[in-house]
Amino acid sequence: MMRNCLVAQSGGPTVAINSSLAGVIQGAIDSKKFDKVYGSLNGVQGLLNGCLMDLTEKVEQVPMFIELLKKSPSMYLGSCRYQLPDYTEDDAPYAYIFNKFETYEIDAFFYIGGNDSMDTVDKLNTYAKAVGKDVKIVGIPKTIDNDLCITDHTPGYGSAAKYVASTLLEIGHDTSIYPINSVTIVEIMGRDAGWLTGASVLARNKYNHAPHLIYLPEVAFDEAQFIEDVREAIKKYNNVVIAVSEGIKNAEGKYISATSAVEDTFGHSQLSGTGKCLEYIIKQNLQVKVRSVEINILQRCAAHMSSITDIGEAFRLGRHAVETALEGKSGVMVTAIRKANEPYSVKMGDTDVKNVAGLVKHVPREWINERGNDVTQDFVDYAYPLILGEPVVKYERGIPDYLDVSHLYPNN
Amino acid sequence: MMRNCLVAQSGGPTVAINSSLAGVIQGAIDSKKFDKVYGSLNGVQGLLNGCLMDLTEKVEQVPMFIELLKKSPSMYLGSCRYQLPDYTEDDAPYAYIFNKFETYEIDAFFYIGGNDSMDTVDKLNTYAKAVGKDVKIVGIPKTIDNDLCITDHTPGYGSAAKYVASTLLEIGHDTSIYPINSVTIVEIMGRDAGWLTGASVLARNKYNHAPHLIYLPEVAFDEAQFIEDVREAIKKYNNVVIAVSEGIKNAEGKYISATSAVEDTFGHSQLSGTGKCLEYIIKQNLQVKVRSVEINILQRCAAHMSSITDIGEAFRLGRHAVETALEGKSGVMVTAIRKANEPYSVKMGDTDVKNVAGLVKHVPREWINERGNDVTQDFVDYAYPLILGEPVVKYERGIPDYLDVSHLYPNN
Repeated sequence: MMRNCLVAQSGGPTVAINSSLAGVIQGAIDSKKFDKVYGSLNGVQGLLNGCLMDLTEKVEQVPMFIELLKKSPSMYLGSCRYQLPDYTEDDAPYAYIFNKFETYEIDAFFYIGGNDSMDTVDKLNTYAKAVGKDVKIVGIPKTIDNDLCITDHTPGYGSAAKYVASTLLEIGHDTSIYPINSVTIVEIMGRDAGWLTGASVLARNKYNHAPHLIYLPEVAFDEAQFIEDVREAIKKYNNVVIAVSEGIKNAEGKYISATSAVEDTFGHSQLSGTGKCLEYIIKQNLQVKVRSVEINILQRCAAHMSSITDIGEAFRLGRHAVETALEGKSGVMVTAIRKANEPYSVKMGDTDVKNVAGLVKHVPREWINERGNDVTQDFVDYAYPLILGEPVVKYERGIPDYLDVSHLYPNN
Repeated sequence: MMRNCLVAQSGGPTVAINSSLAGVIQGAIDSKKFDKVYGSLNGVQGLLNGCLMDLTEKVEQVPMFIELLKKSPSMYLGSCRYQLPDYTEDDAPYAYIFNKFETYEIDAFFYIGGNDSMDTVDKLNTYAKAVGKDVKIVGIPKTIDNDLCITDHTPGYGSAAKYVASTLLEIGHDTSIYPINSVTIVEIMGRDAGWLTGASVLARNKYNHAPHLIYLPEVAFDEAQFIEDVREAIKKYNNVVIAVSEGIKNAEGKYISATSAVEDTFGHSQLSGTGKCLEYIIKQNLQVKVRSVEINILQRCAAHMSSITDIGEAFRLGRHAVETALEGKSGVMVTAIRKANEPYSVKMGDTDVKNVAGLVKHVPREWINERGNDVTQDFVDYAYPLILGEPVVKYERGIPDYLDVSHLYPNN
């Protein structure tokens, strides 16, 4: 008798996480080993609340479902912030979840997420082993931050990197129009690791030198040196563009954004963004026009500008997760292993999820220049293949034609 | 003997202003009435500094120059903030400019810009008439703000509107993932007129209701009503997305952004953005997760997401400006006149530049709902045709392949 599998998404959105979901669905169907693929809405919460969706039915009913899903932004199944307790202290949610697994005849559970989600994979697998349940629990990586260990890179990163690089090129054009001195600071996501900010280097081409300075969280930020860097860059380039990670910290390990809280008119302290902080520093120290731009959530939801390399690999990882579960593995995360750069190729593998859960992969110090205000050619060689290729985005009435997510809006 | 023409760009960037430049160049070449098309770098400043570029030579030397120019963002000839004095008080710059016109044998000068630039067109034309110089001075509209009078719309608006609508759709997807209450405020450009913010309505489709609230500068902003609006919207939609013009003002006509200056740690007052102000208002009055996103300069430089309707009309207006000058007209701005909506069509015309210079066209009050928190179907019918169609953007090494603008970076 055929049994079923279950998939859920967790953490923050990327434009590739739905492609991994599509890969799981297609992989499960093609394997002919599962009757149904269920999706749990809002991560593991869907299991706890009984909100499951029959995805095999969607494939049959919605024309081009898999193709649309691959190219749609954000998270088709929604997300959650739920963290499982330690099962030795409180096993009630575990008993509930595995009871649901039995109700729905689930043989394999695929969880697409970042390092917190891999912790959930680890906990569920540990519990299953402890109580003798044979449900395979497999993690699939995703995060625009690219900070998961073992895997060469994470789905979602290549597309966000392409968006950041293209946007920085466009900002380079935008800032070039006045023959005056100016500074434009662009704040890019990344609390702990500078992978995405570093990708701004890919905006440079034969005429565009922006961003002229790049600051990552991996190097302690020094205000005096920063002012000197900007002063030098203005002399050389007139209109200076700076890419900075939201997560840069000073030598004491304190976030720069936390060091310059501003007070609103009501006297409440408000944390201003990192870009704003650097804007204030320049205003106070240099006589130059300055502005800051925070790319904000656009960098993680701009599916109209995704990398086909990224979308393709996210799909392959989803399929590979199904194969991995069918090989009998559990408590693992599937990984991308880079085989070569020219021509670029990857193969898929897996690793014990304990090698990933709760850990952060930083940009190697040697991929950042000595002064800590730029990345090196090694970084470029690493990131460049990941942004290549543009999927054809279909437009409907002038805006991108994405997959209907009205099931996430219960009140509408 | 063939003489020459001159073209310059002024004001802020749009993604269509280079297409109008391309239209002028192609129109002048096709007319066979001009020997050379010169471009003045950094607006009229190029004339004063002797920085002219031979654009006919570029067409001959750079493969696909016109095609690349049509799709490249920002301003190929750069911009300026120079304002001409009243010639009756100081005619020195006029004498200098018309002297340069003679040196370069200029018969027609095309100035692409917004309402300030049309003031320059008016001044140059008035001076020419007063001193008996036969140089035709013709304005070509551009601004993402769409606030020029007489013309049905302005080149640059349709592309920015498409970017805003698509981005709001993507933000709608992004905010849908958590089954909690949240508010996301999106601040959109437009100090005086709400055309661009209103275009966010085009993000709505059969499943996406975002933005749920829209606030334009044309209606006085009332804080108490705003809080009530948000409270109601949260009940209905859970995750609420708000589109707001940077230029909304209170009943006293004061910018909202100016009413809530914040103090930095040094005690200096800093103007925070309109979106941030609304974020504070919600934080102080409602128990809900809230964040603000400022689309900032991305909405005027994202040439990777332009409207082919807009790019095409910008080109036609450039060509039409050449024809207008050749008909002997001067002191006029070329205009787009809408003939029909279904199927959408425009014809090109012109108007005395005095009808445009220094004036602002607002969104009609009847195109905004009574409560002032949304736009009507009339607005949708007006804006919708302008965002239609996607040009093929060529990518090179993973980022858009735009035209080299290194002539704007003299130090690089």
